[in-house]
Amino acid sequence: MARKINVGIVGAGRIGRVHAQNLAFRIPEANVIAVADVVVEAAERLATDLQIPAVYKDHQAMLDDPQIEAVVICSSTDTHAQVMEDAAAAGKHIFCEKPIALDLARIDHALEAVNNARVKLQVGFNRRFDPSFKRVRDMVATGELGAPHILRITSRDPQPPPLSYVKVSGGIFLDMTIHDFDMARYLIGSEVEEIYAAGSVLVDPAIGSVGDIDTAVITLHFTNGTLGTIDNSRQAVYGYDQRVEVFGSKGMALVANKTPDEVVHSDADGVHSARPLYFFVERYTEAYVEEMREFIQCILEDKTPPVTGVDGRIPVVMGYTAQKSYAENRPVRLNEIDA
Amino acid sequence: MARKINVGIVGAGRIGRVHAQNLAFRIPEANVIAVADVVVEAAERLATDLQIPAVYKDHQAMLDDPQIEAVVICSSTDTHAQVMEDAAAAGKHIFCEKPIALDLARIDHALEAVNNARVKLQVGFNRRFDPSFKRVRDMVATGELGAPHILRITSRDPQPPPLSYVKVSGGIFLDMTIHDFDMARYLIGSEVEEIYAAGSVLVDPAIGSVGDIDTAVITLHFTNGTLGTIDNSRQAVYGYDQRVEVFGSKGMALVANKTPDEVVHSDADGVHSARPLYFFVERYTEAYVEEMREFIQCILEDKTPPVTGVDGRIPVVMGYTAQKSYAENRPVRLNEIDA
Amino acid sequence: MARKINVGIVGAGRIGRVHAQNLAFRIPEANVIAVADVVVEAAERLATDLQIPAVYKDHQAMLDDPQIEAVVICSSTDTHAQVMEDAAAAGKHIFCEKPIALDLARIDHALEAVNNARVKLQVGFNRRFDPSFKRVRDMVATGELGAPHILRITSRDPQPPPLSYVKVSGGIFLDMTIHDFDMARYLIGSEVEEIYAAGSVLVDPAIGSVGDIDTAVITLHFTNGTLGTIDNSRQAVYGYDQRVEVFGSKGMALVANKTPDEVVHSDADGVHSARPLYFFVERYTEAYVEEMREFIQCILEDKTPPVTGVDGRIPVVMGYTAQKSYAENRPVRLNEIDA
Amino acid sequence: MARKINVGIVGAGRIGRVHAQNLAFRIPEANVIAVADVVVEAAERLATDLQIPAVYKDHQAMLDDPQIEAVVICSSTDTHAQVMEDAAAAGKHIFCEKPIALDLARIDHALEAVNNARVKLQVGFNRRFDPSFKRVRDMVATGELGAPHILRITSRDPQPPPLSYVKVSGGIFLDMTIHDFDMARYLIGSEVEEIYAAGSVLVDPAIGSVGDIDTAVITLHFTNGTLGTIDNSRQAVYGYDQRVEVFGSKGMALVANKTPDEVVHSDADGVHSARPLYFFVERYTEAYVEEMREFIQCILEDKTPPVTGVDGRIPVVMGYTAQKSYAENRPVRLNEIDA
Repeated sequence: MARKINVGIVGAGRIGRVHAQNLAFRIPEANVIAVADVVVEAAERLATDLQIPAVYKDHQAMLDDPQIEAVVICSSTDTHAQVMEDAAAAGKHIFCEKPIALDLARIDHALEAVNNARVKLQVGFNRRFDPSFKRVRDMVATGELGAPHILRITSRDPQPPPLSYVKVSGGIFLDMTIHDFDMARYLIGSEVEEIYAAGSVLVDPAIGSVGDIDTAVITLHFTNGTLGTIDNSRQAVYGYDQRVEVFGSKGMALVANKTPDEVVHSDADGVHSARPLYFFVERYTEAYVEEMREFIQCILEDKTPPVTGVDGRIPVVMGYTAQKSYAENRPVRLNEIDA
Repeated sequence: MARKINVGIVGAGRIGRVHAQNLAFRIPEANVIAVADVVVEAAERLATDLQIPAVYKDHQAMLDDPQIEAVVICSSTDTHAQVMEDAAAAGKHIFCEKPIALDLARIDHALEAVNNARVKLQVGFNRRFDPSFKRVRDMVATGELGAPHILRITSRDPQPPPLSYVKVSGGIFLDMTIHDFDMARYLIGSEVEEIYAAGSVLVDPAIGSVGDIDTAVITLHFTNGTLGTIDNSRQAVYGYDQRVEVFGSKGMALVANKTPDEVVHSDADGVHSARPLYFFVERYTEAYVEEMREFIQCILEDKTPPVTGVDGRIPVVMGYTAQKSYAENRPVRLNEIDA
Repeated sequence: MARKINVGIVGAGRIGRVHAQNLAFRIPEANVIAVADVVVEAAERLATDLQIPAVYKDHQAMLDDPQIEAVVICSSTDTHAQVMEDAAAAGKHIFCEKPIALDLARIDHALEAVNNARVKLQVGFNRRFDPSFKRVRDMVATGELGAPHILRITSRDPQPPPLSYVKVSGGIFLDMTIHDFDMARYLIGSEVEEIYAAGSVLVDPAIGSVGDIDTAVITLHFTNGTLGTIDNSRQAVYGYDQRVEVFGSKGMALVANKTPDEVVHSDADGVHSARPLYFFVERYTEAYVEEMREFIQCILEDKTPPVTGVDGRIPVVMGYTAQKSYAENRPVRLNEIDA
Repeated sequence: MARKINVGIVGAGRIGRVHAQNLAFRIPEANVIAVADVVVEAAERLATDLQIPAVYKDHQAMLDDPQIEAVVICSSTDTHAQVMEDAAAAGKHIFCEKPIALDLARIDHALEAVNNARVKLQVGFNRRFDPSFKRVRDMVATGELGAPHILRITSRDPQPPPLSYVKVSGGIFLDMTIHDFDMARYLIGSEVEEIYAAGSVLVDPAIGSVGDIDTAVITLHFTNGTLGTIDNSRQAVYGYDQRVEVFGSKGMALVANKTPDEVVHSDADGVHSARPLYFFVERYTEAYVEEMREFIQCILEDKTPPVTGVDGRIPVVMGYTAQKSYAENRPVRLNEIDA
């Protein structure tokens, strides 16, 4: 049996549980040996369910354990950067959920700490590890689609988050579209230089009342000339809609939604099939396993993780660019935000 | 047998032939009794093939025939308005290919003539008569999709027109996107008030050298809050790509491409099916029949045609708005073009 | 304008009207100049609707018109063979709806008359002219699918015919499966030598009470080793189900159902699309045009029609073989019926 | 943490590894604490890879360990019955791969031993645990499809097994179709009373030379009147083809193949998507987890497993019935084999 990486989890919420389970049950090369959460009961519950030996309230105490080689940061967004810096100081490799922070200076500070500590960092853009998106990325990279001309991303959630969350989320562009911004860069392999964002409050006026929007159509100008369009909604009644399409000089590749089964039912009303898988935990089950597997492999084989700190930072810049574009109703260049 | 409408065709080119054939063979309520073309040989060829009794070089001579009740204008775009005015003056009902003219004042003058003559006018936005688009339009109108939130239109040609045509076409927004502008209004049942158009020359630099673009992504702001996005390309190697999608509060309807057959072929390389039908003549075969059938029915039953002069005018305004938006790289309101 | 073939229609019922309309409106190389029906009012109605100049009660009188070059026989099945012999005697080319007759000796007598008169005969197996089935046939013939191993045909009607029709239909195998027997020979390009037919009365006991069945599963043994299976039902609540699949050593081709539109609708209940086109008139609209176009072309170009008298005879033999197999519950060789 | 069931694996081959991995990594309620294989090196390899503490050459030695509560029998088919009896004698719950044995008396003897020992037995018909087949089964059981009329199963392997395996497999009906026989009973919820099997050697003459066939079309007569058809091939060049269709009085449900991704690629040659998942390990990954999860749950909750000894026995009877039918070319009733 090969060497196993000992991992500590920071944050025992929904996504912390997903990662802990995957590390415990799906990735033989990893051991989860500790979990920390400021709500220590949550940490204890997770530890009991997965037979994790050590529980901490304070992540710093966990970082003091020299057996831990890597941490997976799943705590609330406003703590990511600090935990990252603490982990870097302790010499631990880091997997961090997106976004690193909502403040660019804070991100830069944290990335510098990671850099100086020479530990590995992977940012949690899980969708890149979906086999369909990966294949389209490969088709662009290998030239199978020719030069990319048009990118289309549809990303719609099955239902809006609670209003309490909306208030602190940073807004739709930083909370939701950020995944699509990452996907756009990933698929096309070129940077976006200008963004035009249109938005509306159409799903729920309450979302508007806290200063956010729930529906958006965004135009992307890539440096290589490709034009992109993203559409977002906080509520698709038919479920989590996650489609992409790359149109190039030699062909077009699109990714259709995944469904829980392959049943096609015909009756007097028509032909029916299943709705898309409900939400990110169901849709990206295997992608979550795969991103964690690659993180562990990168540690074992001393390779650079596939989603770097820079990859974590740029979508935040894009989010602010989109915000400014929406606020001022004009196309905005990324270097207006991040000169 | 019910009364038949005697029709004269103006313009014996490709689309003139399509309409003449449909009137002759598919619509029992119509007789094609004359054809006029400044290239009289073209008119003669069409007349021979379809056994049309009378041929004219000059459309005015044809209009003098009192037996003719309706004309179908398929001559070159720059003649549409004049022929329309002449036909109105002669008291003939009018079917006119889009666009009525590229000049708004010219359009207004022609529409006034039609109005004063109290003849019927139908403008040739054929795609409205496709059963799939029609059904989506109905789903919006009846509320089956709930309030519309997002509209997506993909419209890509299989290959660019000749450069000589590009030069006089009025540009991609007035020549190609104009159909999508009409489709947008038709599907959503609301007017567009602002447009942002991004464009690139990615297919062929020659198109750029004559001042046009070949790739575009356009954002539409509707008065009812719906957001729309259109993407256009002058060349999809896999054929004519004509898809729309309306996303609303109660569901989503999309129209997939039509194919020449329903064969699905599986082999060692994968699962394969046919490309979309080649181009507009093949894709909209039945829509062309249907639009003409409705035009003839409107005459027989004295009803207002389903695509009016106003419907012919607004997409031209939208085309100019998109042009200005692209030129100035900013969202432009339609009332900047047409106050 | 090329020479036109003058055609007379025998039988002004549903299928007679389909052929007459296609000849009148879709096939410029044909003129329908006469129609005969023992119910002369039916003939008169059709003549009025399509402006057919001559109406007859007696088909023999029509055959006396020397202007008529070809007849299309759409009268009731029990008259097909006699009309065919009369037409052959009059030197007319013949298109005859299937089946030629339910009695093999009667078929042979009629085919001999046609042969002796050296007129052309095409039998109305319209499905061969569907572009999808045609393409699969081509894929077998060219070897694209390799050696054929398994054939699957699903053929289900949207609703049973009236009981009065069931009684005189010759039974499901001769009335309904006969089309699938023809399709099987056509697709595989090899003869069937043995048949095993299983059947049930599951749709409506009344069908059983008149000695017929409404559900069948049939196994075909081809001389080239291919195995085939056909399943039939008199009632599919979701509409006319017409699928075939050929599985060979190099791949598999299947034909999916055709739908009236390409709309895909997603809502809280799932993803929905249209039922198949209702019934044969809708499903095979273009195939009916195409078979008639080929018949007329074969006359114009003096070629052998693509569905011969032998092609009309063998499926009748197969029908009797299936009947015997079902009655005796054992596989039956075709040469037990037709030695 | 709930109680965990200690499991021993008998047979460390391909399917033994699948079950061991699932029990170790996917089912938290189970511990794999031992593995036995006559090829002890195989057992050792599996033990090392999955950190299984105990390794045995002789399964009986493993059964002596009182800590083991359940065994999973994945050894060669000819040993299943003996291991099952030994396990029953030792009071262990049993999961046994199909078939229990190829000899009916041997099966009966083993089932009696299980019965007398009052241990639980689940037979490894994994396909029942696929969510799509399960849903179709539910649609039949709840009446959503109405009375079932026609069942169609297509089951084709991507490539034939080695000839050495073919020789001892019991023939295609007992080795391959056995899964489809189980699926047929499962989906329809009624027993088959008569079978007609047609077969050919079309894939590889070597298969014929050892007395087997590689292509089959089978007709099933159910006691409730439903008619079924199964088609099998040992080699589909496009991969593992696993489709079913139930047609009933209220509608039809079919299960399409599963693919490794949802990419649709359009280029100048057509529209392309992925082949089906390669073979049973890939296609039924989740079904294998699910069947084992249910087995463990049935022990924990003292319930009858969902696939019983009788369910394991009947498909063997069906296999012999099909063999006899093929050999004698006539429909054979199951009670000719098992009166």
